[in-house]
Amino acid sequence: MALNEMHYAIGVDLGGTNLRIAAVDESGTILAKTALETDVSRGREYVVDELCRATEELRAKFKGVGVLCGIGVGVPGLIDSESGQLLESPNLPGWSNYDVKGDIERRLGTAVVLENDANAAALGEQWLGAGRDCDSMCMYTLGTGVGGGVVLNGEIWRGWNGMAAELGHCNVEPEGYPCKCGSHGCVEQYASATAVVRMAQEARRGGNTTLLRSIGDSEITARLVFEYATRGDVVAKEIFERVGRSLGRAIATMINTLNLPLYVIGGGVSSAWDAFSPSMFDEVRKRSYIFAATTSEDGKGVGGRKRVTLITPAKLGGEGGLYGAARLPMVRSSVMSKV
Amino acid sequence: MALNEMHYAIGVDLGGTNLRIAAVDESGTILAKTALETDVSRGREYVVDELCRATEELRAKFKGVGVLCGIGVGVPGLIDSESGQLLESPNLPGWSNYDVKGDIERRLGTAVVLENDANAAALGEQWLGAGRDCDSMCMYTLGTGVGGGVVLNGEIWRGWNGMAAELGHCNVEPEGYPCKCGSHGCVEQYASATAVVRMAQEARRGGNTTLLRSIGDSEITARLVFEYATRGDVVAKEIFERVGRSLGRAIATMINTLNLPLYVIGGGVSSAWDAFSPSMFDEVRKRSYIFAATTSEDGKGVGGRKRVTLITPAKLGGEGGLYGAARLPMVRSSVMSKV
Repeated sequence: MALNEMHYAIGVDLGGTNLRIAAVDESGTILAKTALETDVSRGREYVVDELCRATEELRAKFKGVGVLCGIGVGVPGLIDSESGQLLESPNLPGWSNYDVKGDIERRLGTAVVLENDANAAALGEQWLGAGRDCDSMCMYTLGTGVGGGVVLNGEIWRGWNGMAAELGHCNVEPEGYPCKCGSHGCVEQYASATAVVRMAQEARRGGNTTLLRSIGDSEITARLVFEYATRGDVVAKEIFERVGRSLGRAIATMINTLNLPLYVIGGGVSSAWDAFSPSMFDEVRKRSYIFAATTSEDGKGVGGRKRVTLITPAKLGGEGGLYGAARLPMVRSSVMSKV
Repeated sequence: MALNEMHYAIGVDLGGTNLRIAAVDESGTILAKTALETDVSRGREYVVDELCRATEELRAKFKGVGVLCGIGVGVPGLIDSESGQLLESPNLPGWSNYDVKGDIERRLGTAVVLENDANAAALGEQWLGAGRDCDSMCMYTLGTGVGGGVVLNGEIWRGWNGMAAELGHCNVEPEGYPCKCGSHGCVEQYASATAVVRMAQEARRGGNTTLLRSIGDSEITARLVFEYATRGDVVAKEIFERVGRSLGRAIATMINTLNLPLYVIGGGVSSAWDAFSPSMFDEVRKRSYIFAATTSEDGKGVGGRKRVTLITPAKLGGEGGLYGAARLPMVRSSVMSKV
């Protein structure tokens, strides 16, 4: 092998609607990219076939040009690292209790690193995005649900059987809205796009609406509620204040627990940053004396500190998961060695 | 140095009332131990003098017999690893913003590893107690307050400036009892000895008392409330059910965040295990689907699992902090290398 030979990894970001595959070199440059639809209606077999075919095509393209250092796959859902199975995946119907890692490995004839998509997104942000100057951080992905990823010393923290960083299920309202996880009042029920829509529908039903009155229940989207908030709609503003307060409570507990330097907010709802971040910061300051002791009102350090505890929007947008998937085989596995 | 030479560390457990110092070898055997009172009323100077004198005596005792691999000191309070200062310590009045590490190092002429006492206790339990088969775990110390320690891969997780694992400030009642940290409804306000006493006093004032009626407000102790609960007192039982529910909420969030294999409960209140653990397990099962997915009702694995997520009482009692302090210099520092 020549010393200056190019090393690259293939990252696969398998979502409920999009399947994206990229060859990424060690500096984070995308060398080639394939974007397909995840046609879940055609079944698991079909999607995995497509995934493997596109991956093989990329590999063939760089044969003789670079050295493939591994394949990383990010999938939505709860992965059990003991069995390698996808335990449940609301966005991939029919994939539950399926050995996705084993199946892809058998088809490709090579090892793959399988990871939850929110963990992959966190790793991507840590590598090339908002966390590029931090070895440790966590990320909240505010999408249909609220996903999370914790990166400690440059590696994803997976926990003893791969189920760590289910940050959407931090409790923020013990007697609150029921969550599909079986609990009540998880942050996912107040800070996801689904929650924004539900809260808007609730406000309408309660008669407590302003601009929102003019649209039908089924037409409400998180983006629309944000637009109304921007235009000054009181109810829409209150909804995003609640998003912020809920997220603030979850982040405060996280700061008090792990004292990380950086908390990154990504996913579709994060584009409403201006609407939810004031109440989020307010709540974090109130609920975490560690945050208050390290960060002043103007975001600068206090008590002679140069560094602060930072909460900031993600930088890679929808690409974080793809970069993170490619990064997976580049960093050594952080599954606990002996637990 | 002879190959078979004995290696040992000196551990110092500095509490608000007791000062204990021990020479401990690498297998965890206490070679010698000094127990003094922490006479805080005589001032910081006096206590640190005593501490250093006793440490020197132990070191002199083993000169020529063994090799001292380091000195670890556990202190109550919030330590800022950036400055090495004890930021605040309710149990050591007059020690706030004091460079305890630097001062001890100057007096002894040697480096010491300074650590929060709850972190040290967690490390002790991981080394020789309930966590001896686990590299990663966390511990809740239910005392005057609720302390916490997180051990990841055999090392204390300190966070970016040493303030991690303030597990007593996980929120369990957003609109709950005010906490001295500035927030409301921290688990410390429901699961500490102080909280048990407060809840008993509240019950008395509300007229809602049974056996508790017979004693004066100032006579109530957590131990007494536990005794009453054991004897079937309805109000005392309800108080410990609340201890359990609150602790369960905090642990559920921890499981969903870090997916650790083991959660250890120590400190004085943990002796009331039988009174609070049923509601604790009930709450954890309800609020953490990761716990529910890995542990059955009878405490065995589910879904073909051999291993389970465990919640268990501490094993070292009051000695955990002393063992942990001695362990500190034996494990490399886990302060983040680049954050």
